[in-house]
Amino acid sequence: MSLRYAILGYLSTGPGTGYDLARQFDTGLGWFWSARHSQIYPELKRLTEDGLITRDTTMVSENMDKYIYSIAPEGLAVLRDWASKPPTYAPNRDTERLQLIFSDDSPESLRKHLETHRDHFRRRREKLQATIDTIRAGEHERVNSRLARRGPEEAALTLQLREMAYVGDIERADLEIAWAERGLAWLDSHEHKPKGRQQGAALAAPQAAGVQQVGEGGVPADASAAP
Amino acid sequence: MSLRYAILGYLSTGPGTGYDLARQFDTGLGWFWSARHSQIYPELKRLTEDGLITRDTTMVSENMDKYIYSIAPEGLAVLRDWASKPPTYAPNRDTERLQLIFSDDSPESLRKHLETHRDHFRRRREKLQATIDTIRAGEHERVNSRLARRGPEEAALTLQLREMAYVGDIERADLEIAWAERGLAWLDSHEHKPKGRQQGAALAAPQAAGVQQVGEGGVPADASAAP
Repeated sequence: MSLRYAILGYLSTGPGTGYDLARQFDTGLGWFWSARHSQIYPELKRLTEDGLITRDTTMVSENMDKYIYSIAPEGLAVLRDWASKPPTYAPNRDTERLQLIFSDDSPESLRKHLETHRDHFRRRREKLQATIDTIRAGEHERVNSRLARRGPEEAALTLQLREMAYVGDIERADLEIAWAERGLAWLDSHEHKPKGRQQGAALAAPQAAGVQQVGEGGVPADASAAP
Repeated sequence: MSLRYAILGYLSTGPGTGYDLARQFDTGLGWFWSARHSQIYPELKRLTEDGLITRDTTMVSENMDKYIYSIAPEGLAVLRDWASKPPTYAPNRDTERLQLIFSDDSPESLRKHLETHRDHFRRRREKLQATIDTIRAGEHERVNSRLARRGPEEAALTLQLREMAYVGDIERADLEIAWAERGLAWLDSHEHKPKGRQQGAALAAPQAAGVQQVGEGGVPADASAAP
């Protein structure tokens, strides 16, 4: 249940409304932790009840108030305690891989599978790059607020950690795109070669030399299918 | 809810007991989709009720029966239909990244954070490599069962898809290890350089050239801290 820490982290930069938070989960923070708007408001209520954040009312116009949330000292302590713990990892839940290994009975869908994967990570990469470019250009409003409250050395660390997070996620996306493209190239070579001469190895990375044996061992037996 | 497809996929290779399945989720399949044992038995019950798998009783010894599950034709159809759909992706839920970007207030924990990350993925890499090595050596019992029921060309595809899945996940682990090591190297240079001369750029990958500006822009302002 990291949503509460994502909210505390956001408010550790400065106060914000529920709407600000929801918007942030749709962009910035959302690259690392996404949340439905329906989850955010109940969590703000719980955090207020727990005394980790405070809620103030500001008059927006004559007819409308809005709530502004701020982190309390207790909330800041809880956030720091959590952030300084060694990271934990969710159990593996990789639908794409599961579909992949069981699509050996429906090979006609493989091309679409790999194209979808490539395109998903191309879109993700593009958005991550746009966000880090905005941060680097000094035009990311929320990051700038965070930097403004910090000394120069602390500010350099804040930026360094954003770099690490975004660059790491961009590299992850690049890996997925390259992986999918290698798979598509393998499909191309597989589909265009005459039957009985297919080598199931084009996809293999250097360390996957063993797959060559698959092509050599599995395929010549298929020579009966050759013209 | 991909657990049911993971189970159907497992049983599409051949019949198995609940115990076999649980063991498989602890190793093989578990690399892509993990499940608690307490989730597996209720799902087997639901799949049986839905007519997608069948349950037979075998006498293990004079005093003990056990259930053996087999996939039904309806289950095979459901599995193929699911596997042939374009992949979907879970929302981003990356605790590690969230902890990372908010540990700018607790920098003393960064080294442990990065070491934990590196070690987590070293362990994962080692186990993935051991599994794909077993498959390549023709010694993976369950994969062998799946291959035995297929023609040579189909068998080559089954192996190719396992290669893609495992090699892709090994590359992911390599990326995380390299990322963490780069972060640790940055920490080293950051901690050992005299204050006021720190360049926050050692971590940046080639495409992250912008971070150089962070070091240049953020750090000279810290010259007051230099001796």
